[in-house]
Amino acid sequence: MDKRPNLVIQNPASFQGKWKDVFEKNQPLHIEVGTGKGQFITNMAIQNPTINFIGVERYESVLLTAMEKAELAGLKNLKFLGQDVKNLNQFFAENEVDRLFINFTDPWPKSRHEKRRLTYKTFLAIYKQVLKKDGEIHFKTDNQGLFEYSLHSMSTFGLSLKNVSLDLHNSAIENNIMTEYEERFSEKGMRIYRLEATYPQ
Amino acid sequence: MDKRPNLVIQNPASFQGKWKDVFEKNQPLHIEVGTGKGQFITNMAIQNPTINFIGVERYESVLLTAMEKAELAGLKNLKFLGQDVKNLNQFFAENEVDRLFINFTDPWPKSRHEKRRLTYKTFLAIYKQVLKKDGEIHFKTDNQGLFEYSLHSMSTFGLSLKNVSLDLHNSAIENNIMTEYEERFSEKGMRIYRLEATYPQ
Repeated sequence: MDKRPNLVIQNPASFQGKWKDVFEKNQPLHIEVGTGKGQFITNMAIQNPTINFIGVERYESVLLTAMEKAELAGLKNLKFLGQDVKNLNQFFAENEVDRLFINFTDPWPKSRHEKRRLTYKTFLAIYKQVLKKDGEIHFKTDNQGLFEYSLHSMSTFGLSLKNVSLDLHNSAIENNIMTEYEERFSEKGMRIYRLEATYPQ
Repeated sequence: MDKRPNLVIQNPASFQGKWKDVFEKNQPLHIEVGTGKGQFITNMAIQNPTINFIGVERYESVLLTAMEKAELAGLKNLKFLGQDVKNLNQFFAENEVDRLFINFTDPWPKSRHEKRRLTYKTFLAIYKQVLKKDGEIHFKTDNQGLFEYSLHSMSTFGLSLKNVSLDLHNSAIENNIMTEYEERFSEKGMRIYRLEATYPQ
């Protein structure tokens, strides 16, 4: 990983509150938690040059594909953190993040693993700390059980939901950037679920 | 309608706060808004003799089928109101209702008709007035657009959602009583959406 210091940030806590200095341009910051192989965030960065992106993925090894893509595209508005999402508030200051994406995250279907789901209340509390007051969470998944759970968890936390789609690929929502999983599942005719959420003002 | 004064209550405002006296037994009160032909509430009343039920339906004419069924079954725990749901708070006192059902209500898909949907914020405000503090709304529909809208409307109102099912007839939720629409649509393989909602304490 050391060969690509400009893509994977090695000491992210030192940039807390200063991410605008890390990027070439001072512009809105969107992050993705559980970035995986990074198709989504790389394509987002290509299509949205006026936004800075950071992909957070615990397993640095899976980031390799994403980094190769980002290098090939010569992207200046995309960085990665090989970090655990539960420590997000150590890497970002309050109000530092404009938008947070959760895409096709591990559903952890067993009840005893509820706390690991990235829409569990402890994660929602961490996202709230780093997001701007009117910052949005954009969440999509093919997993029906995880989406049902997240509707419960988010509404109980007080989040307001909007632009909900229970069948994204047969809906009016435009400009959808697909993840690797999304391409595979939607090709099979499986439904993709999506929502946007904001914290109470 | 005058022939069945014991089933359709003609002057419901006079019973506000006194519904326990109208029924033979003093027991929890569950109401259904937009009862239609009444298959759901009639079967609920048959299967739950320890609960009192009231079906509210603006068009008294469609209640005839429900009343015939209720009479045949000799039900003492079921009444009907031929009234508009928007006046619910004139017929029920604060905290008088234990649970409120909304089943397969008209989706009013056009944006300009949003205010007519029974999950629009003005209706949510009326339900809040008559429901007990921990009283639940139980909502189901086959209409994807109405369910998506209701997730937005309810969460934005501050309601907490639980036991959400995005495919009720392929879920673990048991003892589901079906409406006429539900039988027809689920036989065709269409998904039924369901949730329970409570107001913030």
